[in-house]
Amino acid sequence: MEKIVSLAKRRGFIYPGSEIYGGLGGTWDYGPVGTLLKKNLKDLWWKEMVQLRDDIVGVDAAIMMNPRAWEASGHTEAFADPLVECKICHLRIRADKEEEIKAHEKSHAGSDKVVTWTEPQKFNLLVKSYLGIIEGKQSEIFLRGEITNGAQVNFKNVVDSTRVKIPFGIAQIGKAFRNEITPGNFTFRSREFEQMEVQFYIKPDEKEGQRWFQYWKENRMAFYLSLGMKPENLRFRDHEDTERSHYAKAATDIEYHAPFGWSEFMGIHHRGDWDLRRHMEYSGVNMQYKDMESGEEYIPWDIETSAGVDRSILFLLIDAYAQEDPSAGSPRLSSGQAGRGRVVLKLHPALAPYKAAVFPLVANKEELVKSAKSVYESLRKKYMISWDDRGNIGKRYFAQDEMGTPFCITVDYQTLEDGTVTVRDRDTMLQERIAIQQLDSFLAQKIEIL
Amino acid sequence: MEKIVSLAKRRGFIYPGSEIYGGLGGTWDYGPVGTLLKKNLKDLWWKEMVQLRDDIVGVDAAIMMNPRAWEASGHTEAFADPLVECKICHLRIRADKEEEIKAHEKSHAGSDKVVTWTEPQKFNLLVKSYLGIIEGKQSEIFLRGEITNGAQVNFKNVVDSTRVKIPFGIAQIGKAFRNEITPGNFTFRSREFEQMEVQFYIKPDEKEGQRWFQYWKENRMAFYLSLGMKPENLRFRDHEDTERSHYAKAATDIEYHAPFGWSEFMGIHHRGDWDLRRHMEYSGVNMQYKDMESGEEYIPWDIETSAGVDRSILFLLIDAYAQEDPSAGSPRLSSGQAGRGRVVLKLHPALAPYKAAVFPLVANKEELVKSAKSVYESLRKKYMISWDDRGNIGKRYFAQDEMGTPFCITVDYQTLEDGTVTVRDRDTMLQERIAIQQLDSFLAQKIEIL
Repeated sequence: MEKIVSLAKRRGFIYPGSEIYGGLGGTWDYGPVGTLLKKNLKDLWWKEMVQLRDDIVGVDAAIMMNPRAWEASGHTEAFADPLVECKICHLRIRADKEEEIKAHEKSHAGSDKVVTWTEPQKFNLLVKSYLGIIEGKQSEIFLRGEITNGAQVNFKNVVDSTRVKIPFGIAQIGKAFRNEITPGNFTFRSREFEQMEVQFYIKPDEKEGQRWFQYWKENRMAFYLSLGMKPENLRFRDHEDTERSHYAKAATDIEYHAPFGWSEFMGIHHRGDWDLRRHMEYSGVNMQYKDMESGEEYIPWDIETSAGVDRSILFLLIDAYAQEDPSAGSPRLSSGQAGRGRVVLKLHPALAPYKAAVFPLVANKEELVKSAKSVYESLRKKYMISWDDRGNIGKRYFAQDEMGTPFCITVDYQTLEDGTVTVRDRDTMLQERIAIQQLDSFLAQKIEIL
Repeated sequence: MEKIVSLAKRRGFIYPGSEIYGGLGGTWDYGPVGTLLKKNLKDLWWKEMVQLRDDIVGVDAAIMMNPRAWEASGHTEAFADPLVECKICHLRIRADKEEEIKAHEKSHAGSDKVVTWTEPQKFNLLVKSYLGIIEGKQSEIFLRGEITNGAQVNFKNVVDSTRVKIPFGIAQIGKAFRNEITPGNFTFRSREFEQMEVQFYIKPDEKEGQRWFQYWKENRMAFYLSLGMKPENLRFRDHEDTERSHYAKAATDIEYHAPFGWSEFMGIHHRGDWDLRRHMEYSGVNMQYKDMESGEEYIPWDIETSAGVDRSILFLLIDAYAQEDPSAGSPRLSSGQAGRGRVVLKLHPALAPYKAAVFPLVANKEELVKSAKSVYESLRKKYMISWDDRGNIGKRYFAQDEMGTPFCITVDYQTLEDGTVTVRDRDTMLQERIAIQQLDSFLAQKIEIL
């Protein structure tokens, strides 16, 4: 884990938030390479969910919402009673619910840790904020604790302004905020984080519910596998009755085998009609859907898939990280790192911040530089490409491996003769010669998964 | 303006935030079509600024920052004194600065409105928020009032973790929050908004400063013109000495000729070394840049370009909006709108939410639907495409025109014979027949501007 944190800072993936001021606990800033990685993940998700499907549309709702929305969703109500929090899994239970507490302790029985609890406290999970311009006359609002409500409150707006028909989903990517007691494990538990969610509305029918719940479980697991995550590091974990939110009809996490234990980074939740029914109650606005063909009116059920963007990024980084063993054939590094194997981020090319790096073999031969620049400029119209003409080729490979760049393209003397370049594969370290005109289709074939 | 607000809601561009709860003043939610439009704008900006340039890298910093960062940038200090605000342009001036107030009144002399001022108040422009889990023991923080600080505090991190050399820029897109006194004019002045900025760091040299300031003025104007905005609706407005922030060496707004008057939606600011010098003072961290070739050490100057994403979207919508005049050749609408001309959003194809819509001529001919579906499915791998098989062709055009879809592709009986389709142009309403195999390159040529 320390290696990941150190690499993330060294190569510009992730820095501690407000670092020059000693930080602000539980906040993180993405650097140049991390910003590209995060954008790639969100863009892939968006393309798969919105662009390539007929039945999902997007929204982008405000972080600040009318406080009534949080009363409706039950987020403010939960503040009323003192809670205790399990120090292993951070589940919170009302301090007076002794049976639930015991049941939860049993659920950790298989673990090697003993459950301990925090002191009972009134936890304020939502981050309070104040709007209004005059000091002392401001009204309390909350920053959204999850992006879900931004979709739910717009259910009718979406139905009325588009041609969606049930079953359909509302997709959204955005930031949320939580007053976490114990932020930690790098970006895993932070106070500011990004989510990507689909609220998928279906007919209120048990069979439909089971079918779609199963569909989304498989669909989401397939997404992470398609991004190259190792199957042995992923698993489903169904929520026990004792831990499931009172409104959830069924809930499953997808967990990753992190250095700090199996950890949830996304969930599939059968929320029933909880959200729309509550918003209908609290707002007085009719949230029923009218089926134009059958004439039926009903409050739809909602199968939610909710993923943490930052957690996904963290686990993709961990999964891709490899420090190779020189005795197993990996090259020994020179200069200061002598004897150690290379560090390489084996990110899927579709996710990699840079799709390729282009080098002139040496930086002081004008013809090589000119030819390399022209390769670079033509490829970057379509792909994010890195340029490097410093140091020697070995050092450039070393840097690109640590950033996860899947292909290094070198323009050398042969290029000037026959128009081919050397393409070095990050993972196999094998080199092949490819004609400049073939580079675009070569990259497209490796990179495009959707 | 009312027409824009109404279209925005009707077609799913923008809804009032938390609308079912009576809204939350100054917040807005983007609907399915608006979310696509906003994503297209941000993606184009990102491609031009980051992907296609050697000298700019991106970051994505947290919204919550250590409060010291706001002391350094002077945002909290400004709270200490009562301010008055100009009701025309919303500039705030310390209530005791009589000369500045008079000078500002003169600067509006050419306008047809008379300057009036709000009562002196302690304005709290930054939105206060509380972190910490236990009620009553929370510490005050601020939500960022501009995204600038997120780049500035990471200046050293970026220099240390990448291979940037001065001159270089840090690009960022993200949300910011302000306690606006008078949110209004639809999304123009809101309490939650998105910005896209580049902080471009240069040598501290007057000539360099002038050169880059001029460069970025022209570059940014060219960007909005390339998106199809009408030149007569855009202008530069240099800040007067009396309105310029005390640290700014020069500042220009780009203004749009909105229905509510010429209004700023982006600015180019020569910030000198203000930010880095102040962060160096307040954090104690050395913010000097060392030029490896010359050995010089200095605090760089910063030429900032800062654009409002929501304001850009608003003005792009206004600029693209046209209600045509039937007597001038535009078709008369039938069914309920008889006699009125069509409403069409003439958005640049690069920005349009849907690049094309695909229709079967009629919905009950299986062969037509099958052929149209195959066109739809092949195009949407690359582009956001709309599918419509409801109502008649006229109604489908009507809906797509209002969403700004530049091309409507109809599969008809001739398609089954010769593999061509009808492509109808949104702006000219002319139709041409194009072979299915040519559709991709036809669209690419119209859409791709970078």
